Amino acid sequence: MLTKLGEYKFYVESYVCDFKGKATLPVLGNFLLKAATIHAHQRGFGYEAISKDGVAWVLSRLSIEIYEYPNHDEELLVETWIEDVTRYFTQRCFRLVSLAGETLAYARTIWAAIGVETRRPIDIMAWRPDIADYIADGIACPVGKPSKIPEAGGEPIIGYTVRYSDIDINKHMNSIKYIEHVINVFDLDFFKDNTIRKFEVVYLAEGGFGDKLKLFQSNVSETDCIIDTKKGNESVCRSRITFA
Amino acid sequence: MLTKLGEYKFYVESYVCDFKGKATLPVLGNFLLKAATIHAHQRGFGYEAISKDGVAWVLSRLSIEIYEYPNHDEELLVETWIEDVTRYFTQRCFRLVSLAGETLAYARTIWAAIGVETRRPIDIMAWRPDIADYIADGIACPVGKPSKIPEAGGEPIIGYTVRYSDIDINKHMNSIKYIEHVINVFDLDFFKDNTIRKFEVVYLAEGGFGDKLKLFQSNVSETDCIIDTKKGNESVCRSRITFA
Repeated sequence: MLTKLGEYKFYVESYVCDFKGKATLPVLGNFLLKAATIHAHQRGFGYEAISKDGVAWVLSRLSIEIYEYPNHDEELLVETWIEDVTRYFTQRCFRLVSLAGETLAYARTIWAAIGVETRRPIDIMAWRPDIADYIADGIACPVGKPSKIPEAGGEPIIGYTVRYSDIDINKHMNSIKYIEHVINVFDLDFFKDNTIRKFEVVYLAEGGFGDKLKLFQSNVSETDCIIDTKKGNESVCRSRITFA
Repeated sequence: MLTKLGEYKFYVESYVCDFKGKATLPVLGNFLLKAATIHAHQRGFGYEAISKDGVAWVLSRLSIEIYEYPNHDEELLVETWIEDVTRYFTQRCFRLVSLAGETLAYARTIWAAIGVETRRPIDIMAWRPDIADYIADGIACPVGKPSKIPEAGGEPIIGYTVRYSDIDINKHMNSIKYIEHVINVFDLDFFKDNTIRKFEVVYLAEGGFGDKLKLFQSNVSETDCIIDTKKGNESVCRSRITFA
């Protein structure tokens, strides 16, 4: 049996960096998803293996706390492990580490397994009880379990139409592209003085090509806000952002 | 002296693929820019080296002919070489090759060297005549020298505001992000039956944060069209696309 912890190296290409020369939140998000994909694949429950059962993993929630954004042309390691498996969800955690051993970020994700045809959740414990064998008991993730993110209303601050570049290999709105649009709400000047320290997102519905989405903002405190991405009156995904 | 031809390996991450499971045009564009960056760096005229002279490379034109888009989780090689250096421009060419040796694409780019402060072109032959030593005479690039791309007018088909995710490490609109917005003009259904076989872009002005850009389309033939990205009445970049 492979070790419970997987560790994967990534390189921060300068062309994916922002004006500060740092990896952006969406770039880190892609690293997490990639690390999760390889970790699951190597252990026999990746996309390819489970698609034979007509099942797919769906990202339900993502929370990340970032202490230090990696610089352009820097390498980093992403460690990932499974913290828990329940009937309908797996909790997968991550630590991002510089090559010097400094912790850059921690993250927690929650995944559901759904029937590709039915789009309904699968009972993971009944379907693949062996996944629980990979639960890594001894490793702590300081990112708390996600709490409810309330709705935001009022007038939309920006809107966008889901286009070709938003659609992923599974023909759905790319979960990281949602995040890209969410942080596009903020001005460049704002990012000069502020950094996203914590970001939580919950995916509530599936966006598709041509959907006209609107973003609503509600400020919780001077450093915290909620961005709600809606299709009509329905929230497609909600994010809570803490700035430092 | 290093060889005139540089060859670099890239991996097509599944999370950068489109709904067909293929690398997108912007992904290939990023590979080209990355290969160019390393090739120039290794030969002493990369961004870092020339910034000591207060000079920066600016992409003026890019033409690419794609015979086969690489698949997700596939590796490919990007070969690049300098075809010509004149007073104000260098011509850099590329061949994209599968690991099996099949040519996937050819590309041609034209670069100017500008003063970082003045934003004015530098006489390359006077400033760095040694770059011409790297001209690779024996290698042919079938992509023709770019011709003028006419303006497109009428009513704009889509518009967008330049946001955080569009701005690159140099604080300008990312040249590949322009391309992403250009191909977002087309429907997903259109891409089911059509593939971009040739794409040309000329960059005419610099876009900045907050700019409200509008895209105009003019159809040249059943397979050819022009997309003009404008800020007010001024063309910021123009593209010619040939579909197959």
